[in-house]
Amino acid sequence: MKQYSHWDHVFKLDPEKPISDESLKRICRSGTDAIIVGGTDGVTFENVSDLIDRIRPYELPCALEVSDLEAVVPEFDTYLIPMVLNSQDKHWLFDVQHQAIKEYGDIIDWSQTLAEGYCVLNPDAKVFQKANCTVPQAEDVVAYAKMAEHLLKLPFFYVEYSGMYGDPDLVRQVAAELNETRLIYGGGIQNAAQAEEMSALADTIVVGNVIYENIEAALETVPAAKRKKEDGVR
Amino acid sequence: MKQYSHWDHVFKLDPEKPISDESLKRICRSGTDAIIVGGTDGVTFENVSDLIDRIRPYELPCALEVSDLEAVVPEFDTYLIPMVLNSQDKHWLFDVQHQAIKEYGDIIDWSQTLAEGYCVLNPDAKVFQKANCTVPQAEDVVAYAKMAEHLLKLPFFYVEYSGMYGDPDLVRQVAAELNETRLIYGGGIQNAAQAEEMSALADTIVVGNVIYENIEAALETVPAAKRKKEDGVR
Repeated sequence: MKQYSHWDHVFKLDPEKPISDESLKRICRSGTDAIIVGGTDGVTFENVSDLIDRIRPYELPCALEVSDLEAVVPEFDTYLIPMVLNSQDKHWLFDVQHQAIKEYGDIIDWSQTLAEGYCVLNPDAKVFQKANCTVPQAEDVVAYAKMAEHLLKLPFFYVEYSGMYGDPDLVRQVAAELNETRLIYGGGIQNAAQAEEMSALADTIVVGNVIYENIEAALETVPAAKRKKEDGVR
Repeated sequence: MKQYSHWDHVFKLDPEKPISDESLKRICRSGTDAIIVGGTDGVTFENVSDLIDRIRPYELPCALEVSDLEAVVPEFDTYLIPMVLNSQDKHWLFDVQHQAIKEYGDIIDWSQTLAEGYCVLNPDAKVFQKANCTVPQAEDVVAYAKMAEHLLKLPFFYVEYSGMYGDPDLVRQVAAELNETRLIYGGGIQNAAQAEEMSALADTIVVGNVIYENIEAALETVPAAKRKKEDGVR
């Protein structure tokens, strides 16, 4: 079984946002399954290096979600390559990844490199605007999930509400389509109840912004996600 | 082992082009591994139905390369879904496929449905123009192959020179990148010598136009491809 198939809960840390040593320690010792480092803007080699150096001592799995080639730091366990399925441009779906592979293909460790099929559903999110997305209908999202599972056989399908809590009904419809491809839910999880709700539907939930807004609430999402999994959901 | 991993040689029949019963019989009894039905223009439900009904009695594997949703006939063993990697438009890489899945996703038999990562290398080909392709450099093609193999894990990478004999050096470079993903070569194979040359490099060669121009030469490509494989190449 692949390491990431145990991930029920992950925290996503934005290298542009400051975090105290004490908060970082609590996040890393929270019982979460992994840390993803990633952000839309202001991701640099320096701030990524700094963050991974501070996370590494806690010995939990670390993934870098690659958004900027200049910021690929070679100390992560896993590199996640987002492909924005509902971008209007081939650029964000395929061409940036192609350019990256053209440049770095010979040194990439493919066993550590995993594609994420992203579906960005919050039109106010920075990533939605940056990647020139369109708002898909529910049936579009379901068809993206089918493509991810059956045609592209992607390891991850990422329903990203970035900054906004999502629609559980849509997440449920997507979950029903996925078997081999793991469903990641991210966006707007602010408390244990929301973590529990989305954990009942998605394989992995990602908790991000609330770390910087309310660390106590962020920490409570970990046992909530684990509790839901122990109930045997998904 | 998957059925298509035995394919050394396939004939591609264009449903728009007439073929006599005698020629069709010789093609189907040639020892080729499979027939692909597909074309760029003028593919209709009627001409595809007509052709598959004429091929079926010969009991060899038949694949439909889907180019027009209106022409998807439900009698094939395999459905090949081309994704044009070097198109400039997301449309030909991803969106037509997404629309098809949105419409027909519930009735698709996924075990019969396989994505082909297409790289179209002849700027004079109809498919190049229709899919608004760019001419990639050798290193672009190699990077596409790496994406197909490692990131997208596509079953097929299709080097398509459509109507023009290709560059064996480039095919060799691509072949060196592929292990799990099978390399299909198509384009301009007119005789046994060319069949032998490309068979030494690619997993599968596709022979098309010459069927309609010189059936004797077309038939000679089958033993040529098989001979090369028996030599133990690839």
